Amino acid sequence: MPGNTFGTNFRITTWGESHGPAVGVIIDGCPAKLALSEAEIQREVDRRKPTSSRISTSRKEDDKVEILSGVFEGKTTGMPISILIRNKDAHSQDYTNIKDLYRPGHADFTYDLKYGFRDYRGGGRSSGRETVARVAAGAIAKKILKLKNKTEIFGHTLQIADIKATKFDKDFIEKNDFRCADKAAAEKMLKFITKLRTQGDTAGAIIEIIIKNPPAGLGDPVFDKLEANLAKAMLSIGAVKGFEIGSGFSGVTLKGSQHNDQIQMKNGKVTFLSNHAGGTLGGISTGQDIVIRLAIKPVSSIPKAQKTISKSHKNAIIQTLGRHDCCIAPRVIPVAEAMAALVLVDHLL
Amino acid sequence: MPGNTFGTNFRITTWGESHGPAVGVIIDGCPAKLALSEAEIQREVDRRKPTSSRISTSRKEDDKVEILSGVFEGKTTGMPISILIRNKDAHSQDYTNIKDLYRPGHADFTYDLKYGFRDYRGGGRSSGRETVARVAAGAIAKKILKLKNKTEIFGHTLQIADIKATKFDKDFIEKNDFRCADKAAAEKMLKFITKLRTQGDTAGAIIEIIIKNPPAGLGDPVFDKLEANLAKAMLSIGAVKGFEIGSGFSGVTLKGSQHNDQIQMKNGKVTFLSNHAGGTLGGISTGQDIVIRLAIKPVSSIPKAQKTISKSHKNAIIQTLGRHDCCIAPRVIPVAEAMAALVLVDHLL
Amino acid sequence: MPGNTFGTNFRITTWGESHGPAVGVIIDGCPAKLALSEAEIQREVDRRKPTSSRISTSRKEDDKVEILSGVFEGKTTGMPISILIRNKDAHSQDYTNIKDLYRPGHADFTYDLKYGFRDYRGGGRSSGRETVARVAAGAIAKKILKLKNKTEIFGHTLQIADIKATKFDKDFIEKNDFRCADKAAAEKMLKFITKLRTQGDTAGAIIEIIIKNPPAGLGDPVFDKLEANLAKAMLSIGAVKGFEIGSGFSGVTLKGSQHNDQIQMKNGKVTFLSNHAGGTLGGISTGQDIVIRLAIKPVSSIPKAQKTISKSHKNAIIQTLGRHDCCIAPRVIPVAEAMAALVLVDHLL
Amino acid sequence: MPGNTFGTNFRITTWGESHGPAVGVIIDGCPAKLALSEAEIQREVDRRKPTSSRISTSRKEDDKVEILSGVFEGKTTGMPISILIRNKDAHSQDYTNIKDLYRPGHADFTYDLKYGFRDYRGGGRSSGRETVARVAAGAIAKKILKLKNKTEIFGHTLQIADIKATKFDKDFIEKNDFRCADKAAAEKMLKFITKLRTQGDTAGAIIEIIIKNPPAGLGDPVFDKLEANLAKAMLSIGAVKGFEIGSGFSGVTLKGSQHNDQIQMKNGKVTFLSNHAGGTLGGISTGQDIVIRLAIKPVSSIPKAQKTISKSHKNAIIQTLGRHDCCIAPRVIPVAEAMAALVLVDHLL
Repeated sequence: MPGNTFGTNFRITTWGESHGPAVGVIIDGCPAKLALSEAEIQREVDRRKPTSSRISTSRKEDDKVEILSGVFEGKTTGMPISILIRNKDAHSQDYTNIKDLYRPGHADFTYDLKYGFRDYRGGGRSSGRETVARVAAGAIAKKILKLKNKTEIFGHTLQIADIKATKFDKDFIEKNDFRCADKAAAEKMLKFITKLRTQGDTAGAIIEIIIKNPPAGLGDPVFDKLEANLAKAMLSIGAVKGFEIGSGFSGVTLKGSQHNDQIQMKNGKVTFLSNHAGGTLGGISTGQDIVIRLAIKPVSSIPKAQKTISKSHKNAIIQTLGRHDCCIAPRVIPVAEAMAALVLVDHLL
Repeated sequence: MPGNTFGTNFRITTWGESHGPAVGVIIDGCPAKLALSEAEIQREVDRRKPTSSRISTSRKEDDKVEILSGVFEGKTTGMPISILIRNKDAHSQDYTNIKDLYRPGHADFTYDLKYGFRDYRGGGRSSGRETVARVAAGAIAKKILKLKNKTEIFGHTLQIADIKATKFDKDFIEKNDFRCADKAAAEKMLKFITKLRTQGDTAGAIIEIIIKNPPAGLGDPVFDKLEANLAKAMLSIGAVKGFEIGSGFSGVTLKGSQHNDQIQMKNGKVTFLSNHAGGTLGGISTGQDIVIRLAIKPVSSIPKAQKTISKSHKNAIIQTLGRHDCCIAPRVIPVAEAMAALVLVDHLL
Repeated sequence: MPGNTFGTNFRITTWGESHGPAVGVIIDGCPAKLALSEAEIQREVDRRKPTSSRISTSRKEDDKVEILSGVFEGKTTGMPISILIRNKDAHSQDYTNIKDLYRPGHADFTYDLKYGFRDYRGGGRSSGRETVARVAAGAIAKKILKLKNKTEIFGHTLQIADIKATKFDKDFIEKNDFRCADKAAAEKMLKFITKLRTQGDTAGAIIEIIIKNPPAGLGDPVFDKLEANLAKAMLSIGAVKGFEIGSGFSGVTLKGSQHNDQIQMKNGKVTFLSNHAGGTLGGISTGQDIVIRLAIKPVSSIPKAQKTISKSHKNAIIQTLGRHDCCIAPRVIPVAEAMAALVLVDHLL
Repeated sequence: MPGNTFGTNFRITTWGESHGPAVGVIIDGCPAKLALSEAEIQREVDRRKPTSSRISTSRKEDDKVEILSGVFEGKTTGMPISILIRNKDAHSQDYTNIKDLYRPGHADFTYDLKYGFRDYRGGGRSSGRETVARVAAGAIAKKILKLKNKTEIFGHTLQIADIKATKFDKDFIEKNDFRCADKAAAEKMLKFITKLRTQGDTAGAIIEIIIKNPPAGLGDPVFDKLEANLAKAMLSIGAVKGFEIGSGFSGVTLKGSQHNDQIQMKNGKVTFLSNHAGGTLGGISTGQDIVIRLAIKPVSSIPKAQKTISKSHKNAIIQTLGRHDCCIAPRVIPVAEAMAALVLVDHLL
């Protein structure tokens, strides 16, 4: 069961390692005659770059998108779209001193266990670097959804460590380094992260992804419920430890009579009086907003000394120096948006 | 994308409606020469039955398991195993008075939207009745895991409404109607549910699934991470609104240095000093216990009057009388255990 | 890679052994609101029964079709359709004396090799008995094609041993035991087979499947060409050793200028001046008739003594008595028609 | 159902158009720790190049293989292997004068029908150019089979037009432009093709693929029989119109007693006394040689004038000048070998 393909009808296959020559993605199943340019994909890919050196890695990647197939005279042909992104600013030598040590919280241990061998440079395939390919593919999925149904997908940071957003100003999201919709919270986050960084430590977060105007009727009974495929999509992102849709974990304290979203006709339209379901019923989208939340673990790469073992099973101490993010949440948002778009388009086509 | 198949190498396909003649499952990919009897499957299927009429439906189903293929002289042959379970105590007439109304919180609305037509008797295919087929298939998966790796999978109820278990007595789990590991909490739960039932209302819950001694090395990079497939499996269960692995949502308040599971050799064995990861690294099982938690929404079928609309889009009031569960958590546990076993075996084979 | 599922969008999973309690099939992905009765499926299933005791097995099967799910008030619901067919006239004791011998031309040797164990009664899963499930599923596929596009699929026997049909009277096909479209040839076939049977031997054949009015535009580039999926479908039938589409093997002696199907507008319609392609270009149906031919090997079960080995690798002599077909071609025709219909519908949906 | 992926466990996805910037393939599921160099893949890719300008296109492609991922320090890592091959000698202007005409025997008509739009340069995606990616992937599959089981896969030309090979000198195959194992026949073929070329016409052929020492036990019951997947693989090659395994179409004139491959122990080894089956029983490989034959249609691109229609449905006359093969068989052989290897490895892993 090779794990690098996602989707059935709109199917992507990604490839590439953090410090190899390039990363990329094949998108198979994209409808023909969709206008598509490298620039549109570039815009989404750029959103995934470090938002600020104060909270993120200082690795500088151009992430220049090249379309190698499937587009002719500015339009998709229905054939597979191959997208290539060269790696540039890879400091592989940063990793040689830890190549025989297992970084806690990373895939080093399990990759060696499973494959007997690994590309240790920057995590190789297990690096977050691979998500740039998801974002590139997601840009196309987003465009299809927008054209078909005016669907809009966006995410924001609800919480970093203990600091919670309590206001929601959508316009502010893309104007701050945390993609937080609450200006006061964003300021606290910045203060907190700036200090945490000096301590050689990292923070976790909760992010929310909102899908406005999703097509109704997406999702299939039993195993391919829309929320099941969304959950899979989100948990496939390295840092994600939890997934909720609608009321999620907080819904367990409600009674059935409170939790059920009652229905009424209003101005000739089917209207739900609440959205505890989060946009699906029986695994199929109702057309209401789809609302999901993700738990993002604190970044595992920390300069602080930690206990670990070597490949030859000796106890050791490790410090992960390199160039790392202090809180990855703002950069996970475009990835999670992309995954959401991919799930929806896959069900739509 | 028909949605009734789960898994790739150990692949199940379920079928059947709540009030049709039968439900069943085909298991394809089961290894040959495994000793297998109807009785073993029956034992697991029986665990899914209502635990007590005080908290559950009074529908009485024999749920008698029949193996129709794939087993010869008491052993599997490697061919597909077909399991049939006849429906018995179906009161379809309970549903005729609400056949044109959409029950809030149910799939009625979306099934009509998507298919233009539905079997309205007891929810038809969207009923929890289909999960009996999952449990039957899961019984085989559990057996394979137990034989291969002494893997044990069990679940318990952590919380109902506001009542939380604070102690853990494993032996008590199967001795109480809530599958709660805390005797005092179970007593409070019973009092609470008994009262809630008289109010015509229902409760939500959090359950935890623990996989002890999972095989190490299960899961694939990128999209088929073990936790991604577990999340999909769990969110495919109708009542589940949230999924966590390891630290989950509570992990976001930890620092990286606290959250990382440091590693040491102890008595010649690789030992993790904590288990915030919940048993996987980079999407691949480490061999540590896999620990997941699920948010279970309050049961949607309530006798209380609720606002809804009819098939012809008129406002209406609905009361779901029938025979329903007041808290479904204890019956979801065997289903979630089965789904966990199916995911693991699928990755194992 | 369990092998009992066929198709992606219209997906069937079959199960059951020759001498087990039943065989069956799940059809997943059938559109909702299709009128469907057991009687329609029964009609196709009955076409697969032995056409005459003079050429076929004397095993008498009712092959009574039972629909267990997915149909409500006479219409499909979009949910999986489970079809059950009980086995009746199974003489398992016929097989006990050869249970440790490998019948030449049968799967006995390879099943033991692969699975270490097999249901030896009548070939178990490898028996042609499993094809009854394909025919049942194919009946639904045929109906969909007929309703959507007036597509008609039928087969006939072109050749048995050296006897070739040279005339084509479509109406005669279902009026003779060989499904041969040439009356004179059918008479010769009957004489030949009647004699061959007394010699304890069996015959091979060539059959042709014609798909009239197929939907245009079916098939996908590169690996999922329509003819590729048709070839797979046909070679999955036990007795088939060869597949041709259009000109097939005889086309190799034509020149490009003769083989190319030139195109002209006639009465405002796109018209191909010949059909060497057999109905597809670049793997996609043109709308022309799809014409395929299959080589059917002589039946392997023969009463004549043959050299073989036992399970414990001793030399032995075997005679397959039981009740067997002398020429299976007429019974393969409904199976091949069903497989063709399944491929087309899978691409259509 | 996007059609650019082949295989389940050893899964390839190809992309690229004849006159786009590049073609390529992702191989997912390749085991880790396999030594792999660009040079080994290059060797196989070079075998697909035109063997001689006397019979083939004069298009000159470097076909330089670049590995972009999945290989580290000379060994595979278990991660997806991305292979890129830049297109060089593309004369796209050759096609502008026929961009609105449908070339008979080509996918032009059906691509426009299905996608409403196509890359007309050299057939775009439907060009044989895409097979270079299959050969690159097949090189890895061949290596795995060779290491695991000393399996050898090779093909040769049995017949061109009416000229049949009657001798078999394996060593001669790669020493002549036709990959014919019969020196005298090869000379006749050369004379024939040389003349045919001056007439502006093309020839068909029969090729044979032999798999020596295949692993035993490959293939799955019912739908995923080894020969079913081989048939699909072969019919996915553009020029293939027919497929046979073992006795194939000629087997229909044998009696069961002649056709059955009897079995005997010889020197302690299971030995089949003939190989009419062609290497499988019940869809599973026996370990005998797998022998398949393919019908290759005459090349469709011919300079002779032919009737056709334009995109706007006007009658027209077309001459396909460009640079084309006169008989494609010798170049199909490495592609068919690659597809055979891919099927076997997919079943093996």
